[in-house]
Amino acid sequence: MSQVNINDNEVDIVIVALHSDLTSFMNQWKPIFSRFHLIIIKDPDLKEDLQIPEGFSVDVYTKSDIDRVVGSSTSVLFSGYSCRYFGFLISRKKYVVCIDDDCVPAKDNTGKLVDVVAQHIVNLKTPATPFFFNTLYDPFCKGADFVRGYPFSLRSGVDCALSCGLWLNLADLDAPTQALKPEQRNSRYVDAVLTVPVRTMLPVSGINIAFNREAVGPALVPALRLAGEGKVRWETVEDIWCGMCVKVICDHLGLGVKSGLPYVWRTERGNAIESLKKEWQGVKLMEEVVPFFQSLKLPPTATTAEDCVVEMAKTVKEKLGIVDPMFSQAAEAMEEWVKLWKSVGSGQSS
Amino acid sequence: MSQVNINDNEVDIVIVALHSDLTSFMNQWKPIFSRFHLIIIKDPDLKEDLQIPEGFSVDVYTKSDIDRVVGSSTSVLFSGYSCRYFGFLISRKKYVVCIDDDCVPAKDNTGKLVDVVAQHIVNLKTPATPFFFNTLYDPFCKGADFVRGYPFSLRSGVDCALSCGLWLNLADLDAPTQALKPEQRNSRYVDAVLTVPVRTMLPVSGINIAFNREAVGPALVPALRLAGEGKVRWETVEDIWCGMCVKVICDHLGLGVKSGLPYVWRTERGNAIESLKKEWQGVKLMEEVVPFFQSLKLPPTATTAEDCVVEMAKTVKEKLGIVDPMFSQAAEAMEEWVKLWKSVGSGQSS
Repeated sequence: MSQVNINDNEVDIVIVALHSDLTSFMNQWKPIFSRFHLIIIKDPDLKEDLQIPEGFSVDVYTKSDIDRVVGSSTSVLFSGYSCRYFGFLISRKKYVVCIDDDCVPAKDNTGKLVDVVAQHIVNLKTPATPFFFNTLYDPFCKGADFVRGYPFSLRSGVDCALSCGLWLNLADLDAPTQALKPEQRNSRYVDAVLTVPVRTMLPVSGINIAFNREAVGPALVPALRLAGEGKVRWETVEDIWCGMCVKVICDHLGLGVKSGLPYVWRTERGNAIESLKKEWQGVKLMEEVVPFFQSLKLPPTATTAEDCVVEMAKTVKEKLGIVDPMFSQAAEAMEEWVKLWKSVGSGQSS
Repeated sequence: MSQVNINDNEVDIVIVALHSDLTSFMNQWKPIFSRFHLIIIKDPDLKEDLQIPEGFSVDVYTKSDIDRVVGSSTSVLFSGYSCRYFGFLISRKKYVVCIDDDCVPAKDNTGKLVDVVAQHIVNLKTPATPFFFNTLYDPFCKGADFVRGYPFSLRSGVDCALSCGLWLNLADLDAPTQALKPEQRNSRYVDAVLTVPVRTMLPVSGINIAFNREAVGPALVPALRLAGEGKVRWETVEDIWCGMCVKVICDHLGLGVKSGLPYVWRTERGNAIESLKKEWQGVKLMEEVVPFFQSLKLPPTATTAEDCVVEMAKTVKEKLGIVDPMFSQAAEAMEEWVKLWKSVGSGQSS
C-alpha cells in the first residue's frame, strides 16, 4: 500500500443496522474503526433497540431522524440497505467508507489484518488511470509502476472518486448462483487494485465501498427498488443501479473508479433458495439496465454530480420508463434525491 | 486454474535465441516445455552456433531459412526480438506460446512451479468477457464466478484470442523508469486473470504471451521498428504496436484479450541507463500511437484478421505516415506481412 496521510476528520464510516445487536460486529472492527467517526443508520423497519458497544465516536440515526430531515418526500425511500444513503446525506466529511454489517475484518495472504479504511483512502487519494490499461495493476501501489509502453502523458492519471472493495469467504453472488453452488466460498486473495477503464461498466456492490463525497456524493443515489426487495444483498439491486450512475458520471466528469483491495470477510446470511423468487426480478432488469447505461451520454452542460443525476433521471424516465414503471419511480427518486442533497447534503467538510 | 484438456499437438512454443547458449534456459523450462513442440528462431544477427540441450522436440530456424521462406521481401524484418514473428508464420498449430529467453519458470504464492503453458491454454480455451467488468476477476477460474448484477446474457462470453502473462522479479518497465528505480523488483504475485474490456487499449508485452493462431495469427505483425532498436526489451516497441493491432482487431471481430496469470521469473539483462537514449524514441512515439489506436475504426467488410491488418495499414499510412516516416514503413510491413501470411502462414493445423 502506498503511504498517504489519513486525517481522521476527513472520514465518516457509515453502517447500516439491519439487526439490533451490533456488539460482535463492532468489537471485531474496533482496531480499525475506533479512531474514526461512525454514522449508524438504523433500518426504519427494525423495531428492537440497537446494542452498540462502548469505545466509539458514533452518531445513531433512526426513523424519527430520517422523517425529520427528509420531511414530506415520498419518492426517496430509506429502508433496508437503502438507509445507508441517509448516512451519505448527513455526513459532512470528504470521504465516506461504508461496510455491510455482515462483514468482519479480513486477513491478507501473510495473515495480517486488513485495514479496510486505510486501503480505501489510499485508493481514493492516489490517482486513477482510466484511459489506458496498466498490466501491472495500480501503478501507485508500493513496488508497482507503469509498464513499458504506457504513454507518459497519461501517467498523472485523474482523481479517484469511488473505491470498490471485495469479499473473502462469501463473494457477492446473486441468488441463483449461490443457490446453484451452496458450498462455494471465495478463498482467493487477489493482491491488486485496478482502475476500471473509462466506458467500461461494472456492477458495484454496496457491501464494501468508499467514495469521495465532495466529488460524487450526490451520484450515490437510492433509486431502483425491487418490489420484493428483502434484507439480504442478493435481494437488492439499489447498489448496482447506483454504481452504474456513479460510473457514467465519473466517466463524464473525468474521475476514476477503482476495484480490488481492500477485502472484508463476509459471513453467512440468508437462504439463497428462498431468495430466488425475489432475485429473478433484479436479474431480468439487468438486461435492460446494462445496455441503457452503456449507451448513456450526458450533455457537456452537466458539470457537477448533481447536474448529471438530474440529466440522467430525464433519460431514465424517457427510455426505461416505458419498459417498467419501476424505472419511472427510480427517475423520480433521483430527482428528489438531488433536491434533498442540495438542501441537506451539500454542506462542506467541517 | 480451470480444468481444460490440453492437446500437445495443438501447441507450438516459439523461442527467440538472442544469445547462443540456451542450455540453462531450456533445462529450467524442461518440466514444462518437454511435452510440446518447440520452434527456436535464431536471431539473424547472432553469429555463434546455438547450444541446445537434448530432450526436446525442436526445430531451429536460422537466417538461411528465413531468407528462403521470405524471399525478396524487404519490408518485413526478422531480426532481434522480431524474429519471433517468423516462428508465428511457420507454426501450423492452433495455439502459440512465446517466452523471451531471459525468463525462467516462476513459483506461485504457495511455492508451486507455475505451468505457464497450461495457464495460457486455459486462458485461451475459456471464454473472455470484454463487454462488462467482473469484479471477481476471471469468472471461469476455479472457485470464481460472476458477481451479482452481471447480466446473464453476457455470461457466455466470447472466444479468447490473446493471453498476456506477467513477470516477477524484473517487471517490463521502460528504460527511463528502470533507470530511475534501478533496485525495483516485482515481488507481488497477483493471483488473477482478467479480460481487458472492449475499447480499452493496453501495452502488450511480448515477453510472455500466447495466442490463438487460427483466430488472430496474422494480426501479430512485426511492423514498428525503432531506428536505434537494440536487443533488450526496453529498446523495442514492436510488441507494443503489435499488441494494439491485435486488441483493435479482437474488439472488431468480437474476440477477447486476457491479462494476468501466468507469471514468469525475469532475470536481469541490459543496462537501463545505456538504453535511455534509444528508448526515448519509443516513449515519444507512444504519444501518437495510443490516440491513433484508441480512435481507429475498422470497416464491417473486414471480417478476418488479414482483412483487418490490411485496412489498418491503409489508415496508418494516411494518418500516422505524415507524423513520422517510421509509421509509413510500419504500414508497408503490415501489408507485406499479410501477403506473406497468405502464402506461407495460412496453413491449417495438421
